[in-house]
Amino acid sequence: MNFTALHQQIKLQTDAALVTLIDALPNHAPRLKAAMHHSLLAGGKRMRPLLVQLVGNALDVPKKDQMAISMAIECVHAYSLVHDDLPAMDDDDLRRGQPTCHIAFDEATAILAGDALQALAFSHLADTPLSDFAHSRRANLLSVLAQAAGYMGMCGGQAIDLASTGKSIDLTQLRELHKLKTGALLQACVEMTCLVASDLDDHTKDSLLSYARLIGLAFQVQDDILDVEGSSEQLGKPAGSDIALGKNTFPAKLGLDGAKAELGKLHENALQALASLPYNTDSLIAFSELLVNRNH
Amino acid sequence: MNFTALHQQIKLQTDAALVTLIDALPNHAPRLKAAMHHSLLAGGKRMRPLLVQLVGNALDVPKKDQMAISMAIECVHAYSLVHDDLPAMDDDDLRRGQPTCHIAFDEATAILAGDALQALAFSHLADTPLSDFAHSRRANLLSVLAQAAGYMGMCGGQAIDLASTGKSIDLTQLRELHKLKTGALLQACVEMTCLVASDLDDHTKDSLLSYARLIGLAFQVQDDILDVEGSSEQLGKPAGSDIALGKNTFPAKLGLDGAKAELGKLHENALQALASLPYNTDSLIAFSELLVNRNH
Repeated sequence: MNFTALHQQIKLQTDAALVTLIDALPNHAPRLKAAMHHSLLAGGKRMRPLLVQLVGNALDVPKKDQMAISMAIECVHAYSLVHDDLPAMDDDDLRRGQPTCHIAFDEATAILAGDALQALAFSHLADTPLSDFAHSRRANLLSVLAQAAGYMGMCGGQAIDLASTGKSIDLTQLRELHKLKTGALLQACVEMTCLVASDLDDHTKDSLLSYARLIGLAFQVQDDILDVEGSSEQLGKPAGSDIALGKNTFPAKLGLDGAKAELGKLHENALQALASLPYNTDSLIAFSELLVNRNH
Repeated sequence: MNFTALHQQIKLQTDAALVTLIDALPNHAPRLKAAMHHSLLAGGKRMRPLLVQLVGNALDVPKKDQMAISMAIECVHAYSLVHDDLPAMDDDDLRRGQPTCHIAFDEATAILAGDALQALAFSHLADTPLSDFAHSRRANLLSVLAQAAGYMGMCGGQAIDLASTGKSIDLTQLRELHKLKTGALLQACVEMTCLVASDLDDHTKDSLLSYARLIGLAFQVQDDILDVEGSSEQLGKPAGSDIALGKNTFPAKLGLDGAKAELGKLHENALQALASLPYNTDSLIAFSELLVNRNH
């Protein structure tokens, strides 16, 4: 199967599994349940499940363990988007061409949907059947996810982003911000998958984590470039919103050409990190190419 | 040590441990860290840590396991208060006589502080050293907490509360609402403590869970009564806010005398649930008395 077909397959599998996850909830709070469904299913690209599966396939991780990790990560990712879009945060009405959760429902429901999706990530990861080896690592999986989601990761990064909006920060601080805000969860995809791979040597693990760190930053640089160059139609949200919000971005720091050069360098370094691995890493190379070449 | 002195001791221990927990975080997002500190330390009564310790002492649960459970529960409890107080939810400016998180900081920081406190609950419970027996139950502990916090518990209850505000629901629905909104986390205190008690028989566990369910509901009935009878000064927040917000309450359904009779019945039934246990349950009786007799 070629890479594009594999991505499409994973997208369909992930969507179906997320529908099953939400449908399994009882109906005592139908509006909240609908808001959780909306937030999880409104057109995600499923880059994180794709990354989990590519690394998992390379390391012979059983499919059900890959899927459990992917589901939990997607719940955390979806909750973070719902809360980031709130009026008090980035105040976005559109996401992936669809109304954001607080627009489709209301602000209180969106806050609660995010909260409940975060809890669902942890309850799913705590409860879902795993292979024996992965089961023995369950508490570690939960630990990595919680660290990546919280003050040490995503929430910390978002707080630095808020604090620096409208102010100028230097390139080192900008990288640190995105390492936490976007990078931590992408890194958690790889770290969690490595955790449930039996007999993994340190060199392979370190190389894969370096790859994850580099593509995580590349993802954000490309996001910043798209906000300048992309159209609102392609992006499914207003282009130019970073500048409108007074955000620090790589194009603002480095110029558009400088940001593209930074992107190219991160991509090259990510491939370099894979070079010495005794696996077929073609699909991980293709994943990095997908990130840096995407137009939405 | 008498019950009041024990409660005071647990309050001081819990406060100190929560300060240590927050101080251990690095300083990359100082405003978020300060908001988390404010939310955790602004005068909580520490009823949940007290309940964990009373049950834990009766069942010979090691102190460090009790403390790990208490910390995680207090993080979830604090996050829920921060989000419930937001303008889009109950819009409260005061909590325990102090400015709520979004007043002391700002709305975006309060949303993030709640999010980060939820993640901290799980990372603390996943990472903190436990006794060997409790360590073997770590994934179960995380599962119970995540279920109690999410759609199946607290978030689900809050959503039902929002949906029913300004409408009339019947007594069965009101009980169901509070079983989830307030009861689930109180029940989780007991269930998590039972999980890490070795050699616990089913009868004891079921009795303690019944007790938790009954005092959870009693707690809410007394909350509703205090909102009618208490002064704003005693409560540390405006009295009468339930009526102002159009909330369904036990006094509204049953009258004030009816609500007090309901409270008395729940307290009696809670003591009944303890009656056949082969433990000294004096302190658990005192705990229920504390809940139903409190004036704030």
